[in-house]
Order: sequence, then structure tokens, then C-alpha cells
Amino acid sequence: MLYEINEKALKLESEGKKIIRLNLGDPDLATPQEIIEAAYASMKAGKTKYSSSYGELRLRQKIAEIHSVKAENVVITPGSKWAIFATMFLTLKNGGNVIIPTPYWTAYDLIAKSLGARTKLLRTEMADGWKIDLDKLESTIDKETKMIILNNPNNPTSKVMDSKTLGGIVKLANEKGITILSDEVYGAISFVETKSILDYDSEFKHILTNGFSKTFTMTGWRIGYIVANKMLIDNVTKLNQITINNVPVFIQEAALTGLELHKQIASKIKAKYKQRADLASLKLSAAGFKFTKPEAPFYMFPKIEGLDSEKFTLSLLDKGVAVAPGTSFGDYREHFRISLTAPDDQIEVGLDKICEAAR
Amino acid sequence: MLYEINEKALKLESEGKKIIRLNLGDPDLATPQEIIEAAYASMKAGKTKYSSSYGELRLRQKIAEIHSVKAENVVITPGSKWAIFATMFLTLKNGGNVIIPTPYWTAYDLIAKSLGARTKLLRTEMADGWKIDLDKLESTIDKETKMIILNNPNNPTSKVMDSKTLGGIVKLANEKGITILSDEVYGAISFVETKSILDYDSEFKHILTNGFSKTFTMTGWRIGYIVANKMLIDNVTKLNQITINNVPVFIQEAALTGLELHKQIASKIKAKYKQRADLASLKLSAAGFKFTKPEAPFYMFPKIEGLDSEKFTLSLLDKGVAVAPGTSFGDYREHFRISLTAPDDQIEVGLDKICEAAR
Repeated sequence: MLYEINEKALKLESEGKKIIRLNLGDPDLATPQEIIEAAYASMKAGKTKYSSSYGELRLRQKIAEIHSVKAENVVITPGSKWAIFATMFLTLKNGGNVIIPTPYWTAYDLIAKSLGARTKLLRTEMADGWKIDLDKLESTIDKETKMIILNNPNNPTSKVMDSKTLGGIVKLANEKGITILSDEVYGAISFVETKSILDYDSEFKHILTNGFSKTFTMTGWRIGYIVANKMLIDNVTKLNQITINNVPVFIQEAALTGLELHKQIASKIKAKYKQRADLASLKLSAAGFKFTKPEAPFYMFPKIEGLDSEKFTLSLLDKGVAVAPGTSFGDYREHFRISLTAPDDQIEVGLDKICEAAR
Repeated sequence: MLYEINEKALKLESEGKKIIRLNLGDPDLATPQEIIEAAYASMKAGKTKYSSSYGELRLRQKIAEIHSVKAENVVITPGSKWAIFATMFLTLKNGGNVIIPTPYWTAYDLIAKSLGARTKLLRTEMADGWKIDLDKLESTIDKETKMIILNNPNNPTSKVMDSKTLGGIVKLANEKGITILSDEVYGAISFVETKSILDYDSEFKHILTNGFSKTFTMTGWRIGYIVANKMLIDNVTKLNQITINNVPVFIQEAALTGLELHKQIASKIKAKYKQRADLASLKLSAAGFKFTKPEAPFYMFPKIEGLDSEKFTLSLLDKGVAVAPGTSFGDYREHFRISLTAPDDQIEVGLDKICEAAR
């Protein structure tokens, strides 16, 4: 229902209605001016041609440096969503199932199903701090299991995986010969120390996907990447050749400028979202919502006992606030997701309306 | 071998070698300045966010107007290649085969195979003016046939389909319940009158794919579209939601500017390529090559009796000229493809080297 809510919100807006958009992870902040200028300079310099389906070497090298890998382990994709689709398209070619811990980002499940793969959902609970239980994971794995998807930090809970659990999952996956796809798109701006799958995977058995959307406020630019073993990178490149061909070079050069200004941009963004998360935590606590403390941007995933989140979301949209129902993230009917990605004053009004509606 | 040649040419260039690139349909002309300025203005206006997976309404409306359809029949895609992939992904979900007339653009075959579909190649001959034989087509169709792909004007022959053949194919496809995918990416700049599949398909049984790359020298921008019945458009949009999400809005606004300046831009581009095609025809004729007269940009597909086109292409690359071997377009070992997409002086040198190498 995530996308339906969004199309409905867009439609209401196009009809002139004012909607406070707390339903998507699309930051209200503008893309930094330096990044826009870099794209413009690149276009004017004629970087408007077909290019390598691997991505630009300079960008791959910079990403490789950040993750302490080689450029041959990096391919550039039009958004991290395409990185995930491409990886799953190739890994699930011959069938099999995918284990997805819940609550999850809807797209994992939709992608797997569009490819004819089965998904096995592994429930985690707010009461356990959204921790994955290793025994439960082991018993969910069967002979057909090809992939485990991790989203760290997690959307919608904004929870970061503890190092013991992550290490345990990698160990288990290695024993069983299962590939982990680790979506770490919120990793570079999390509020607490966040381990990467690469910290546990010196042999490149697993796959990291990442993007520029969240760290650099570049959601609409559609640029992300995969870090993996060379064979997977080569195969994704072949898939790129027959689908998207390449990410526009001027967008890649803009993203490179982002990486070069990384510290300065990311720390500003992180501070802003930390402040919003603190404000939201205060308001929601005072109104009696239950939730775990956000450890990363942009989301809160509060619970109200007995809530029907789809009804709640639709009626809230009529009141001018778009959020996402908990059912969009698995079987979480009593939860809903708030994205703290609107201007501060709108967030404040939005939160007040939410608290009021939940009374 | 098309993509291998390209990656090899890129590699040689990165090593400092000078390569005359006649291997890709990537025009040497710059993207018109008005289009670049429109993109920049759009970025600065904050059009850098997630957006509808259908594409921007204003752009869809403009495209709909051009093709005399409704906006609901149009979806925007990151390049016409993605339009083709998405269409085939959805149409061939439950298996079946695809009929592809040859010589063909490599991507059709690679896409079909990546989706696990079978391809049935329908050979056309230079001696017949590359015309599709309707009886041969009918006997190629079987119960598993789901799709016929037309590329009109054709890459690599630059031949435009005659109206009688096109009408005959549509009639046959309608009788058999087969979907035609008509890739018309060279249509708006062809040198002769070119009919669209839409001229024969008032009921939207078939699918048109098109792009901005060729008409507006926007290859590296990755923007194209599909015109089809609403159900297919909705399904492609759902696929967009779990893959590429959206084409950057600033790219869509740039493309819209292109369409608004269509006449002026397209006629300039057409004249330039007509002039190049005439020059190449003269030179290749004088050197004894056999070929059909190009009716559209950008390609020539000449033949030399007894040629081994792969060997020829590789040895030509060592001499500093990249072309594409005939075997990249089907079983055409004696042909090779020249793209007239380099600066005029380079084309002249390139053609001379080709004529020399073929002696």
C-alpha cells in the first residue's frame, strides 16, 4: 500500500490540496548546490554520451577506496533499488526462496515475487528491540534458500544491528552457502556506530548495496552501487547493458563531488535528522506511543494497541498528513511509519495531527 | 560482440590510443544547449526528488499529443532499452517465444534470453531490400509465439518498412493474437516517410517504444517511453516502482524542452545525417561494397563477399577504427556495421581506412 498512498498523495496535491508528506524517505532538504553545479559543468563538458555499463572508473575507484576494496568490485546502478533488483534477478534465476526479516522495506518482497521467487518472512518484535533471533533464522532456512536480505540500519525501525547478531548471521549463511544481500543505504548517516557486511566478509561471499539518495539528498537523481565479488559485478554489468545501459555520466560526476565533500555534507544531514528524531521521540512519548529509539534517519515506527493502520493512514491522508501503514512492512497492523523528511514546521504540525488522530 | 568491442575501444582510449568510434549509435553532436539549460534550471528549482513511476504528467501529455493518444497510454522509461526490457519482462513472464527479424539489434535477443524466452530469428536478405516475407513470417509463428519485434527504421540496415508489409504483419499478428513490439527510435529523423505501428493499431493491441537519444542527441541521458494500452502502462509502472523508480525529473523536463523545439532540432540532425549517409554511400560504392541506400540515420551495413567480419573488426580496431561485426546482428558474417556518428573529418578518415582494409 506504500506506493498507492504515494500516488494518492501526489494526486491530491495535483488537485491543489496541501499534504504534509511524511510517507516517503525523500528528504525535504535540497540537493547540495555543489552537487548541482558539478552536474551542470559535466553536461556542458559534453558528458552526455553512452558510457560504460560498469560506471565511471573514477567514481568506482572512490567508492572502492571508501570500502577498502578494488574498483573491479564496484558497479554503478540507477539507484540502490536497481542494485537490489539486479542482484536478486541474477541470484534467483533458477528459483529458490529469500528470507526477509520483518518489518521490511516493501520493495524486497515485491521484487522477489516479480521474479517468481518465494519469500520467507522472519518476524522480529519491538519488544525484543527488533533483534533477529539466530535460532529462528536457522530454522527458517531450508534447502531452497538462496538469499537472506538484511537492511542495516533498518527501514522502517531505524534500528542498527548489533555486531554479535550480524556476525552470527554471516557465520550461519557461510555454513549453509547462502548469499546475504545487505542494503546499507542509511549506514553512512546513522547516529550510532554501524558495522557493514564487508567487515565480516573478506572473501566476498556476500553483497553490499548502497546509494547516494539518503546521504547526499539525491533521491530523485537515481544513483547507487553494488560492492561484491568480481563475477557478480561482471554479471550485473551485462544486465545493465541490456536494460539501463548506464547512469548518466553527469550524474555520476555529481555523485563523485558528493563523495569528495562527504564529511561536511553527511555530518550536516546527520545532525539535522538527529534533532528531528529527538523532537519526534518527545512528542510521541508524551502522547503515549510505544517505539524504539531511532538509531538512524529517517523513520519512526510507533505502535498503538488495537490500531487498524490502513484505516488510520487513509483517514490521516484526508486530514492532510501522509504516513505509511504498518502493513506495508509486514504483519504490523498496529504500527505505522513516519518519515521525518519534511520541513521542521511541517513535521511539527504533522506530528501534532498524528497524536490528535490517535487519541 | 557489440559490447565487447565497445568496452575494448573504451579501454584502448583510456590507455591513450586514438580510436575513431564508428561502432555505436552515439551521435558525436552535442546535446542542444537549450536542453542542458532546461535540466540545470530544473535541478536548481529542486526537481531532484522521487517522483511518479509513470513519469511527469506534462511530458506524458506532450508525447500523447504527438502520437494522438491519451496520457494514460504513455509511461516514461530510462531509455528505450528499458522500455523494451520492461515490455518483454511482462509479456514473456509465462514463457513462450519471440520472433525477431534479422539483421537485428543485439539487445532484443540478449533481453529475451536473459528472461528465459526462446527467440526465433526470421532472416531477411539484402538482395530483397531487407523486406520481411509474410509467408515466411506466418510459418515461423507457432503456438508458443508471444511477440514479434519490429525495428522500424531498422538498425543496422537503416531501412524503413514499406506500408504494405507493415500492414500485413499487423493483420497477421491480430489474427494469431500475438503482440508486436515496434521499436521506432529512429523514426522521427528518418529520411523517408515512416509509418508507425500506431497507424495500424487503433485498438492498442501492440506496443510502441521510442526514445529521446537519437532525435535529440541525448543518448547518455537515458530517457525513452512506451505507448500502449493502459493495462500495460500500469504494469510497466509497477515494474518501475520496484526497479528504477523514476527517471530524474530534471531529465524529463529537459526532454520536454527538446520536444517543444522538436522541428528545429530534428530537421538539423536529419540534414546532417543525410549528408553523411550520402558521403559514405559514395565512398563505399567506389570501393566496391554492396549495401542498400540508407533511409534513416545512423548506419550502413555493407557486405564484402567472403568476409570474416569478426576478424575484420578486430584488426580494424588495431588500426584505430571501431566498427561492429555483422555477426552481432545475426548470421551476417560478410557484413559489418558503420555508425556515421563521429565528427565529419573522422568519418572521412575512418571510411578511407575501412576501404583500404577491405582491399
